[in-house]
Amino acid sequence: MFKLYYTPGTCALASHIALEDAGAPYEAIRISFKTNQQSTPEYLAINPKGRVPSLVTERGILTETPAMLAFIAQSYPAAQLAPLDDPFRFAEVQAFTSYLCSTVHIAHAHRMRGYRWATEESSFADMRRMVPKTMSACYAMIENNMLRGPWVMGEQYTICDPYLFTLAQWMEGDSVDRAGFPRIGEHYARMMVRDSVRRALAIETAP
Amino acid sequence: MFKLYYTPGTCALASHIALEDAGAPYEAIRISFKTNQQSTPEYLAINPKGRVPSLVTERGILTETPAMLAFIAQSYPAAQLAPLDDPFRFAEVQAFTSYLCSTVHIAHAHRMRGYRWATEESSFADMRRMVPKTMSACYAMIENNMLRGPWVMGEQYTICDPYLFTLAQWMEGDSVDRAGFPRIGEHYARMMVRDSVRRALAIETAP
Repeated sequence: MFKLYYTPGTCALASHIALEDAGAPYEAIRISFKTNQQSTPEYLAINPKGRVPSLVTERGILTETPAMLAFIAQSYPAAQLAPLDDPFRFAEVQAFTSYLCSTVHIAHAHRMRGYRWATEESSFADMRRMVPKTMSACYAMIENNMLRGPWVMGEQYTICDPYLFTLAQWMEGDSVDRAGFPRIGEHYARMMVRDSVRRALAIETAP
Repeated sequence: MFKLYYTPGTCALASHIALEDAGAPYEAIRISFKTNQQSTPEYLAINPKGRVPSLVTERGILTETPAMLAFIAQSYPAAQLAPLDDPFRFAEVQAFTSYLCSTVHIAHAHRMRGYRWATEESSFADMRRMVPKTMSACYAMIENNMLRGPWVMGEQYTICDPYLFTLAQWMEGDSVDRAGFPRIGEHYARMMVRDSVRRALAIETAP
């Protein structure tokens, strides 16, 4: 039985959906950013980085979405969530998840978490102004160069798909025009009707 | 025969060392940032993101350091560059490489590449001022919570090691006091005497 520490509206949703896709036994434990629960001694003992998600396993604790997604895929090979027997295809999956975490998620974070990299209110405002442009550039890269369709990697659904879906949820908040990226929009709609996505969202949006 | 596109002083060094560690046949091809070669049509045809590194393989082109490192480890299992038969231990390796790419490298990038996330000179100056603090916090996290010693993952050298070594090369430029992180310093010294590191550095520092 895994324990997934998550906060609604964060990238933890990607791993949450992947756990559902894998049919893995897990308990979802909500961490409230509003009460700064991620910075309490209790949570820092789980994840000293003070971030979500964290995945508690029998072997120890894992963090970082790309690592957790690959772990879920490798732990439940029957679910076929990644091309595990082909290092090149697996690397293509990882190149995608790595791009999402190190470029797309980071561009997004400059809207509300500029304090990670600067101190002045004028810098935060400058960063916020640029987010629609940087995020649109990221989505154009994905739309034109990465998303093969119908799933990110083509015919086979993989761990790339819940991760893209999770970040695409932020489009409106980031003032990105969804209509400009029709293939990502189709992918989003395709995800919304999956049972795994519905179950994870039901848990995360419950009161 | 792989082709590794690299620029000296970048994170491409991590994959370059890993290729040497693996004993993989490769050709190293230098991309000059000074002449903006990463933005030429020729290079964008290889990597539309206009970044280094890129790894050209017989199957296609890979980007993103964590993906390339895992690919090198999986393609040359005899080199034992990752715990390939243990999904949990492999995920620990990946959590480390993911942290380096999405937190440490990103904190560093705010010193010279603030234009990725803002437009004003005052914002760039604000970002630059914060880099010693953010990078020191990253190195404290690694020193205290991640680096097991003698190698990152303990007794076994893995793909984590060339990646940490590569980023640790930036400490002085980022105004981080190396003396504050003695275990990372010892790791750095341990890396500097490896043949794979010397060979990769010799290629990258050649005129």
